[in-house]
Amino acid sequence: MIERAVILSTGDELTTGRVVDTNSNYLTGKLAEIGIDTVAVLTVGDVPERLEWAWRTAIGLGDVVLSTGGIGPTADDLTTETVARIAGRKLRLDQPSLDKIRNMFKQMTRVMPENNAKQALFPEGAEIVVNPIGTAPGFRIPITLEGHTSQVIVLPGVPREMKPMTEESVIPWLVANRGRDTVFAVRIFQTYGISESALDEAVAGLIAPEEGRVAFRASFPQISLRVTVEGRPGEAERKVDELAARVRERLGEYCYAEGDETMEGVVSKLLTEKGLRLGVAESCTGGLISHRLTNIPGSSRYLIADLVTYSNEAKMGLLGVSAETLESHGAVSEECVVEMAAGARKRLGVDVAIATSGIAGPDGGTPDKPVGTVCLALAAEGVSVSRRYQLRAGTRDWVKLWTSQIALDWIRRHVLGMPIAESNVLRR
Amino acid sequence: MIERAVILSTGDELTTGRVVDTNSNYLTGKLAEIGIDTVAVLTVGDVPERLEWAWRTAIGLGDVVLSTGGIGPTADDLTTETVARIAGRKLRLDQPSLDKIRNMFKQMTRVMPENNAKQALFPEGAEIVVNPIGTAPGFRIPITLEGHTSQVIVLPGVPREMKPMTEESVIPWLVANRGRDTVFAVRIFQTYGISESALDEAVAGLIAPEEGRVAFRASFPQISLRVTVEGRPGEAERKVDELAARVRERLGEYCYAEGDETMEGVVSKLLTEKGLRLGVAESCTGGLISHRLTNIPGSSRYLIADLVTYSNEAKMGLLGVSAETLESHGAVSEECVVEMAAGARKRLGVDVAIATSGIAGPDGGTPDKPVGTVCLALAAEGVSVSRRYQLRAGTRDWVKLWTSQIALDWIRRHVLGMPIAESNVLRR
Repeated sequence: MIERAVILSTGDELTTGRVVDTNSNYLTGKLAEIGIDTVAVLTVGDVPERLEWAWRTAIGLGDVVLSTGGIGPTADDLTTETVARIAGRKLRLDQPSLDKIRNMFKQMTRVMPENNAKQALFPEGAEIVVNPIGTAPGFRIPITLEGHTSQVIVLPGVPREMKPMTEESVIPWLVANRGRDTVFAVRIFQTYGISESALDEAVAGLIAPEEGRVAFRASFPQISLRVTVEGRPGEAERKVDELAARVRERLGEYCYAEGDETMEGVVSKLLTEKGLRLGVAESCTGGLISHRLTNIPGSSRYLIADLVTYSNEAKMGLLGVSAETLESHGAVSEECVVEMAAGARKRLGVDVAIATSGIAGPDGGTPDKPVGTVCLALAAEGVSVSRRYQLRAGTRDWVKLWTSQIALDWIRRHVLGMPIAESNVLRR
Repeated sequence: MIERAVILSTGDELTTGRVVDTNSNYLTGKLAEIGIDTVAVLTVGDVPERLEWAWRTAIGLGDVVLSTGGIGPTADDLTTETVARIAGRKLRLDQPSLDKIRNMFKQMTRVMPENNAKQALFPEGAEIVVNPIGTAPGFRIPITLEGHTSQVIVLPGVPREMKPMTEESVIPWLVANRGRDTVFAVRIFQTYGISESALDEAVAGLIAPEEGRVAFRASFPQISLRVTVEGRPGEAERKVDELAARVRERLGEYCYAEGDETMEGVVSKLLTEKGLRLGVAESCTGGLISHRLTNIPGSSRYLIADLVTYSNEAKMGLLGVSAETLESHGAVSEECVVEMAAGARKRLGVDVAIATSGIAGPDGGTPDKPVGTVCLALAAEGVSVSRRYQLRAGTRDWVKLWTSQIALDWIRRHVLGMPIAESNVLRR
């Protein structure tokens, strides 16, 4: 039975602050999805005795050890020889791997440096894990120390090589060999406009513990909800679909996407599908709304323009906000954003226009309008909505990000004919 | 002597893929700066026997153990009691800490939940590490196991609390107590427009190994260069200043900032100092230039507006780009960006205007203008510069970020009277 995993991340760059270890985060997440528990993550630099210690410790603790890093061509890449020594195996050249590496260099019209041949050496008895992208293949070998056998799986440290190898080879192998006949089926819901505790309440009692598990993950400004069912192949998928239908109905308008989709991705899809033209008028968000939208390929199909009117003169000159409004209500007011949205709609000739203005801080707050005061307005045929919100105090980038999320959610709600938010957190 | 450190990161969120452990990256970097070597990073979930194992292992390996996480108010926060048990000490209530926690809740007009009192408990003999931001203080206590003494330092897991505690308390304490009479003096240079190998060449031979160390860190789109000198207090600072002067002279226009300053921070400072008004006209960067600039407080002092003209009609209507230009040269052309910049300058009445247009991908490329083709123009009194670059193929966000960096560097160079780039990487 493979129940307990240890992740081993190696490399001087990880123990000197040069690189953040995102690999272990990725791997522990993948293991959790298939019900394998990560007992520990060990990280050490490229120092022989530390690697030796880490490997022996990892093999002792885990039924499976997933290692990243240390299989490159240079002298400080010590993983393969360390594993071979601990396993008591000799290194053996794998000719197909060597041919493949040579071929990769040939394709780049380069001659393979001789030290790259090292990447075709594996401990005797190891099974090769194909690397579809880079030069270094990985390998898998069972190692027994003091009567405990651990499945050692060695992967490269480069995330864009390690990830496809994990998804295409490692996870399927673990699922097939972990000694259980069950699989995990997962559905993810992305929510916005509902607090974590309200979300918790909303789905309470919806799924019995013996049916499946519900977990939340807050990653500002959205909260995702994950439903997991363990069961026999086929059955688990059917069951998770049934549970997902219940959750979907309960979440209603608060769920803006399923799976990995982002808010900007959903808004892009909706506007494109409906053939609607969007105009944006930003003040406090400073271009972030269109930056997020233009991160999605194809945004030119609906985004006509964004007028980032950071000064009052630009609000007047480009959007037609009146001097009286700015004088009597200020730039951070519902009156101002209503005129900004209407002006953007008219001047850009768009179907939908959204406008923001606010005090992102750290300076500029007043007792009447403290940092975190933001105003939004949406204008469309026969529609003019505006609100003033008081966001919880936070850093400047937090206020910008949060406001951009509200703006995108307003567009989504408008297109779908849902009520537009009465509060920045709709349900607490 | 404190020479070897172990970092201990605890929390179920770290062993299930929910949160990336950035704390250990930060801490190993800080330790490296003061010459303390991180032997290992251990990460375990909130499971009593795993915490016990990790703590005993960490104390055995390190002269100092820096721990993050597990000192919150809830039942799964087990760090303090685990450390007390291993140290063989009782837990003792620290009244000043309790008063401070109560007071923090009072300021938020809330009553302290009783379980927060747990955060004022410390092992007997521990020295408290003040938390200037959150409720949970940290603590330091020496623990001896099997004849080896380790300085245990316990910090909260929330980065914005952990970091000031590290900088204000932990690092100064380590420097004063590590048993060496030398200190490390560091100077950092931020560069753009020069490749890592050209940078390496530029400073080669400038600093002898016995004088100090030079290290590079590429973090796209900039490369930073760090000069470190170890020596007696005072002497090290004098020496590093001398070396920094040499480096500064050699880097010249490629160094846009020293220390932690960002490109957008430098541009903001320069425009504010010179009292120049900026206008932006973005196409392919989609708002990212003004998003970056408005991340810096005070950007309203110089940024008049950004016209994100994502459509051809907006380029014509808002910026006065001619239909003939768009027809004969296309939107991604030097001709178009020159008209965009000139139009922005005139219509916004600004001193400096910058414009971008390009093909960010993944679609939209042609044999003539593949993905990564970008055009920039800058307009100012008596100045009109434009260039077409071919950026190395990359993802959409990479092309956007890179182009925004070039644009900001152009503004910096213009204000400082430096030549504007002939190539996206000026020196290779």
